[in-house]
Amino acid sequence: MIINQDTLNFLLYDVFQAEALTELDAYKDHDRSTFDGVIDTSLKIAQDYFLPHNAKADANEPSFDGESVSTIPEVKEAWKHFTEAGLINARHRFDEGGMQLPALVHSACMGLFTGANPSTAGYPFLTSAASNLIHAFGSETQKSLYLDGMFSGRFAGTMALTEPNVGSSLGDLTTKATPQDDGSYRLKGQKMYISGGDQDITENIIHLVLARVEGAPQGVKGISLFICPKFLLNDDGSLGKRNDVMLAGLLHKMGYRGTTSTVLNFGEKDDCTAFLIGEEGKGLSYMFKMMNEARIGVGLGAAMIGYRGYLESLAFAKDRPQGRKPSNRDTTSAPVNIVEHADVKRMLLAQKVYVEGSLALCLFASKLVDEHEAGGDENALVLLDLLTPVVKSYPSTYGCKANELAIQVLGGSGYIREYPVEQCYRDNRLNPIHEGTHGIQSLDLLGRKLWQKQGLGQQLLMQRVQATLARAKKHERLADLAEHYSTALKTFIETTTALGMALQQGRIDETLANSALYLDVMGRMVVGWLWLDMACAALESDCDEAFVSGKLQAARYFIRWELPEINHLSELLKGFDQTCVEMEVDWF
Amino acid sequence: MIINQDTLNFLLYDVFQAEALTELDAYKDHDRSTFDGVIDTSLKIAQDYFLPHNAKADANEPSFDGESVSTIPEVKEAWKHFTEAGLINARHRFDEGGMQLPALVHSACMGLFTGANPSTAGYPFLTSAASNLIHAFGSETQKSLYLDGMFSGRFAGTMALTEPNVGSSLGDLTTKATPQDDGSYRLKGQKMYISGGDQDITENIIHLVLARVEGAPQGVKGISLFICPKFLLNDDGSLGKRNDVMLAGLLHKMGYRGTTSTVLNFGEKDDCTAFLIGEEGKGLSYMFKMMNEARIGVGLGAAMIGYRGYLESLAFAKDRPQGRKPSNRDTTSAPVNIVEHADVKRMLLAQKVYVEGSLALCLFASKLVDEHEAGGDENALVLLDLLTPVVKSYPSTYGCKANELAIQVLGGSGYIREYPVEQCYRDNRLNPIHEGTHGIQSLDLLGRKLWQKQGLGQQLLMQRVQATLARAKKHERLADLAEHYSTALKTFIETTTALGMALQQGRIDETLANSALYLDVMGRMVVGWLWLDMACAALESDCDEAFVSGKLQAARYFIRWELPEINHLSELLKGFDQTCVEMEVDWF
Repeated sequence: MIINQDTLNFLLYDVFQAEALTELDAYKDHDRSTFDGVIDTSLKIAQDYFLPHNAKADANEPSFDGESVSTIPEVKEAWKHFTEAGLINARHRFDEGGMQLPALVHSACMGLFTGANPSTAGYPFLTSAASNLIHAFGSETQKSLYLDGMFSGRFAGTMALTEPNVGSSLGDLTTKATPQDDGSYRLKGQKMYISGGDQDITENIIHLVLARVEGAPQGVKGISLFICPKFLLNDDGSLGKRNDVMLAGLLHKMGYRGTTSTVLNFGEKDDCTAFLIGEEGKGLSYMFKMMNEARIGVGLGAAMIGYRGYLESLAFAKDRPQGRKPSNRDTTSAPVNIVEHADVKRMLLAQKVYVEGSLALCLFASKLVDEHEAGGDENALVLLDLLTPVVKSYPSTYGCKANELAIQVLGGSGYIREYPVEQCYRDNRLNPIHEGTHGIQSLDLLGRKLWQKQGLGQQLLMQRVQATLARAKKHERLADLAEHYSTALKTFIETTTALGMALQQGRIDETLANSALYLDVMGRMVVGWLWLDMACAALESDCDEAFVSGKLQAARYFIRWELPEINHLSELLKGFDQTCVEMEVDWF
Repeated sequence: MIINQDTLNFLLYDVFQAEALTELDAYKDHDRSTFDGVIDTSLKIAQDYFLPHNAKADANEPSFDGESVSTIPEVKEAWKHFTEAGLINARHRFDEGGMQLPALVHSACMGLFTGANPSTAGYPFLTSAASNLIHAFGSETQKSLYLDGMFSGRFAGTMALTEPNVGSSLGDLTTKATPQDDGSYRLKGQKMYISGGDQDITENIIHLVLARVEGAPQGVKGISLFICPKFLLNDDGSLGKRNDVMLAGLLHKMGYRGTTSTVLNFGEKDDCTAFLIGEEGKGLSYMFKMMNEARIGVGLGAAMIGYRGYLESLAFAKDRPQGRKPSNRDTTSAPVNIVEHADVKRMLLAQKVYVEGSLALCLFASKLVDEHEAGGDENALVLLDLLTPVVKSYPSTYGCKANELAIQVLGGSGYIREYPVEQCYRDNRLNPIHEGTHGIQSLDLLGRKLWQKQGLGQQLLMQRVQATLARAKKHERLADLAEHYSTALKTFIETTTALGMALQQGRIDETLANSALYLDVMGRMVVGWLWLDMACAALESDCDEAFVSGKLQAARYFIRWELPEINHLSELLKGFDQTCVEMEVDWF
């Protein structure tokens, strides 16, 4: 099972009011039945063509014989069904051949594919991301030349950013672009960790490459974005000459094994042709305009891998008799199913709050995309900018933690490949790293996002949080939780204020030293708020009592067990604890 | 690198005073040079014959063609060197062919092998454990028939406890033993997750099997322990008839891949001969007498896999230039090595306190074995009994956490198999499960161990803790840490008292509901105490200033960052929070 459909419907329609989106002009041709239709189609494709080969793709990872890459045939079959359903460009306008789908509904669909098979889902997801960049910033010629092939599934796309020895510090990348007389560029350099950088699924691959034009300034301002196809296209769109971008080798990952991770050489024979997107020097700013959605995608993937582990371990626990209650000393009594044990309940409840909370967070972020893009609400973008580091990192951290607990619930069955949860655990471990590590996210949050536009993002978040608190106080069953949350909120605001003042005083390194703790605190605050919001929505819904009680108990668990950890972290932050920074290298 | 040798020497000789053991009669023929000699030999064998094929054994796990199992030849070579060095029976008396080695020194040696290659080390470790059981409880005939072959490396040993659908609840196991006229028994049943249950390394395998004699009472009192060799032995010790114990199949693990994990069928053809060890019905009590050391072994393995990840990530961080300090906006300045970044220091320091703290804990437990066995101190056994659940679980939890951080330090290199840390992460994930899950350990601790002998174990622990506090207060540099620790200790004692009173009132299920939290609290208290103890020892040693500062900063990190988490956990425990227990199954 990929998801609890009641919970998905609850999130979409009760918590995030997806139907209200149809009041926006861009989505006025939709109604709940068209949303449900595309979700059902996605679920069916995910279940029929993605889930069945998830373990097989893991056990039979792509191979490279020096000439070409081989993947198992099921991947191509899944790709075909995904692209034929029009899902690559589902968010584009009807008149562009898209489905004009809200980001909220689209995210729900995409999550089903990662939940079913994250590594096969990687190919279409990357192609979507690359095509979105061309769609947003490419010239008309570029759009007409490349997009059709990408939307229809003839071409795949990649994002070629990282270089060996550069990693997160993109400003230092060295791949060189030399202008040619015909307006094209020659690329030379090496890229690493490029997902889908080669494969045998599509007839062509459109690489989007960050490189530095000769003579460009150092740092991020010297970086430009290029289209570099594996096969150059003739003017009529047919495949032309093989370009000088070559697979140097495959990397062998712990998880997401079915997605090739490649080292690519551009211009080894000095014959790698590429085409500038937009203006020189703006490459990173283009890339970053797509970053919010890419990071929601990583968070969503982490949430959904976590979710599948949760469902697998829940099913196992309900079915596996073992042991008795501690007070029962009668060894002749029948064993109970392990779901009855307090500690197993704890591990299942923790998973539930992590994965449902993470999914809610990613869907909320997607709804902000809609409020901005289709609703024209600039404030929604400001809030999204603020929350993006959390949307990337909270699900990555706690999705992994959920998978760790899923293994523990299964016991010995948890760590053998005959059961599915160990693969979830390996797959998910990539998510706290790719698309920006936690360290990078935390500096982005505490060093930048919180203070943009005079802290407008913070204010917008507080307005939403206060609205939920007011709403929660109307429900007797939520009174104590609202109070607990308010107490935590006070601590959070004090901490944020203290850090902000220190930054204003120029105490930059000292304040940012513990930014990772702040990222965790903020994640707990935001997800705690969403749990309170979900509890309100559950009480106000017509869902059945067991469902409502489950959401309330989860909210209670989050607010009583998870949220109070911010106290200790806030102490360290407010006290500007320098224990880590002061550790000298030769003391290790 | 497997270990920092300065730290190992510091732990052995400064913290745990290994040389003082030579004052005990059993170890009087030893001195520091004989201890160092066996450690050097172990390190050399571990480095030369275990470490080099660690990744290869992972990538080429044992296979089963339906007839026999194949392992890579390096495993047999490593086995040969290990056994030829006399390490299987190193702890036995000189007159039995052993080295009469203290448990403390022996543990240090064994840790080097798990650090180098946990899955190859599994074979000799299991053989040691099985031979120890025969040595302790077998008849003279059994000892003379089996031990020589096991000590010399001709035979391996296994521990066959777990059955499908029984798992942790050993009292429910169903493998049947039928007495035969000649005094032997026929076994019939299936065992699962039996490590080393078949292999092509040794000429015979001696299985120690838990089974239930026909007509025996239900529960643990009906369980007996049997020797069941793969090949029956003739009276002269030569191999006889192939016994009816057959490999049903291999299980495929996430980690420890080089150690076969097997499903074994006993008596499929009703012809499986086995021999009772000791008395009927005492099987589990024999097993449990060996359990303390087996659980120290798991903790030690987890600590050392964590340790290797720490060393690998430290070396990487010192060598990898990337990024600049947040306050440095000059993009033309040279990047710094990532070990200079505050968040990387945090991740390295956390690893350091987890793995060095865990290693200290395991060595302390081993020293208690010596104080009991060679020193005749019964109180040492009481304290060891109390601490065993912590010794098993703290390193397993935090060794995994250390490996998770090691991956994060390496970034993209962390999750690819071209670097070693992802294997550490996979290997270590087994340790919180095998030899008793955390759930089992926590019930053992809070439901039993704390209260045995009127809480004598607690008192003994408190005496040692108070002695360290008194010692720490003499050092000005430790004054504030000692104070912080004292505050935490007060909370810990209050919590323990509250739980103890509730148990006395018969509130069993309610009190044990959150036992997992108590296990974590106790782990933090014990390892926090050891860090304070290590800080004292460092200040009182003649180690160089950088080394001493490193230990002090680690102690500071532990006591300021890790220890205060007990406050929130203690609140939940003292408040008898029933959020998890009250979660109904149909609410998930």
